[in-house]
Amino acid sequence: MRAPLFEAVPNFSEGRDDTKIARITEAVRAVPGVRILGLHSDPDHNRSVLTFAGGEDPVLSGSITLAKACAAELDLASQSGEHPRMGVLDVLPFVPLEGATMDDAIRLARRAGESLGALDFPVLLYGSAATAPHRRALPDVRRGGYEGLAARLEDPLWKPDYGPHEMDPHKGASAVGARPFLVAFNAYLDTDDVEIAQAVALRVRESGGGLPTVRALGFGVGGKAQVSMNLTDLERTTMPAALEAVRSAASDLGASVESTELVGLAPLKAILQTARHYLGLRELDAHHVLETMLYGAPDSRGE
Amino acid sequence: MRAPLFEAVPNFSEGRDDTKIARITEAVRAVPGVRILGLHSDPDHNRSVLTFAGGEDPVLSGSITLAKACAAELDLASQSGEHPRMGVLDVLPFVPLEGATMDDAIRLARRAGESLGALDFPVLLYGSAATAPHRRALPDVRRGGYEGLAARLEDPLWKPDYGPHEMDPHKGASAVGARPFLVAFNAYLDTDDVEIAQAVALRVRESGGGLPTVRALGFGVGGKAQVSMNLTDLERTTMPAALEAVRSAASDLGASVESTELVGLAPLKAILQTARHYLGLRELDAHHVLETMLYGAPDSRGE
Repeated sequence: MRAPLFEAVPNFSEGRDDTKIARITEAVRAVPGVRILGLHSDPDHNRSVLTFAGGEDPVLSGSITLAKACAAELDLASQSGEHPRMGVLDVLPFVPLEGATMDDAIRLARRAGESLGALDFPVLLYGSAATAPHRRALPDVRRGGYEGLAARLEDPLWKPDYGPHEMDPHKGASAVGARPFLVAFNAYLDTDDVEIAQAVALRVRESGGGLPTVRALGFGVGGKAQVSMNLTDLERTTMPAALEAVRSAASDLGASVESTELVGLAPLKAILQTARHYLGLRELDAHHVLETMLYGAPDSRGE
Repeated sequence: MRAPLFEAVPNFSEGRDDTKIARITEAVRAVPGVRILGLHSDPDHNRSVLTFAGGEDPVLSGSITLAKACAAELDLASQSGEHPRMGVLDVLPFVPLEGATMDDAIRLARRAGESLGALDFPVLLYGSAATAPHRRALPDVRRGGYEGLAARLEDPLWKPDYGPHEMDPHKGASAVGARPFLVAFNAYLDTDDVEIAQAVALRVRESGGGLPTVRALGFGVGGKAQVSMNLTDLERTTMPAALEAVRSAASDLGASVESTELVGLAPLKAILQTARHYLGLRELDAHHVLETMLYGAPDSRGE
């Protein structure tokens, strides 16, 4: 049995200076046992999303290295961007992958929070790692952003779980959490009417009475109405189930889906569920995939 | 760059005696660098299909080990079964996988043929490795089977490429070849009328003017009409293209597809093509799959 795997998806507050972004990313890449899975930098939001994975200790080391690099390279006092943020290492969620449970990811988030606190980052735990119900949702934790942070940290309801209770104006504060793997799946409609995308999103998302474990919002992107979805539990709602719900809701509003996109990574399971659904396959799992049999994780091999 | 990979899919003439089958399989498994991908034994046909993979030299060693084990464990003079066969190691095709070309697989087939010849197996090269056009198709090579083999080997048109020209009644002869990776994909119709499956097969297969690189036959299996397909080049015809052609042809004959099955392995590409097609994804390749990024072949990693 291989050691449990985790993914970290830190967001740091630099999306324009390629040299700084590269220095931060390379510092994490140099940590033994860490594998970089992706980097997405957004100049408008002036923010980068780094994805890396590995066992618990390598991912913890990578997170500490990342925090030090962010503190060394970035200064929130001189940063600006469209995205709400409260720290140089703004958000640091941990995701349980193969062999790991959500409890494992919560433990990792607490270990990372403690380490960042020792580096003088005020740390608020959020998501499944939150220490109070009102601190679970990231938008609530981050409300007021950097500008409101000094006052926030003095509020007993929002005192940091780790680190100093006074903010460092250069570092800001960090939200460290645990959450399930998300499949970010967007559908583009054959209309520029954002209200149609918003109405479709309302119908398909769980909070609107739609599909379980689906979050959805409507946007206008590149002149098209976009239904942006997060699928948070593929056992409850698959990609084909989400798409067919969007197609149906859009059709009722006189629109149709022109194309879709996957943002970031999807687990093989999501792709296999899709093929099984549309092909009507009696069975299909990772053991039917040549590459899994050749290179796959030991416990997914057929031997 | 990793060394080119090959798959071998030998068929040997024992499908009933589990002890013998296990001894033969374990001998191959013990060869360093060989990975067993699958074993399917059929008691009716009294025949087993073993699938293994690795670099060129390990797969060659595995093939030689397999031939010796078949000669030691099996005796064609006392074997019976429904399937046409001419040897204890009846068919030994090599398939180019990642990094390998068909020319590489042909070279491997010739090396294996030479080695088997030195072990006194009469060897006929077939498929892409055939040394004459009339020896390409396996059914032609195997025509007359074991019972007609002694006469066959004396025919100048069918003299072995390697090994003795007289047959050993215990070993018989072996067809050694090279062929592309096949996706074996079957569709079950909502009828027991085999003629409908045969008519559908005729319409979708390349030889009937249908889809390029598709072979198809109609059968009755488990009380259902089955369209059995081999997809031999996924760049030319994908699984969704094949299925939609079957659905359309069946519909014209008043039938529909109830379910499908994948026999053996499919490359990840086949599954990704399917998801991309039915979801309308703007792009989807192996780099979007979490497991590929975590465990994949080095040249499919994003780093």
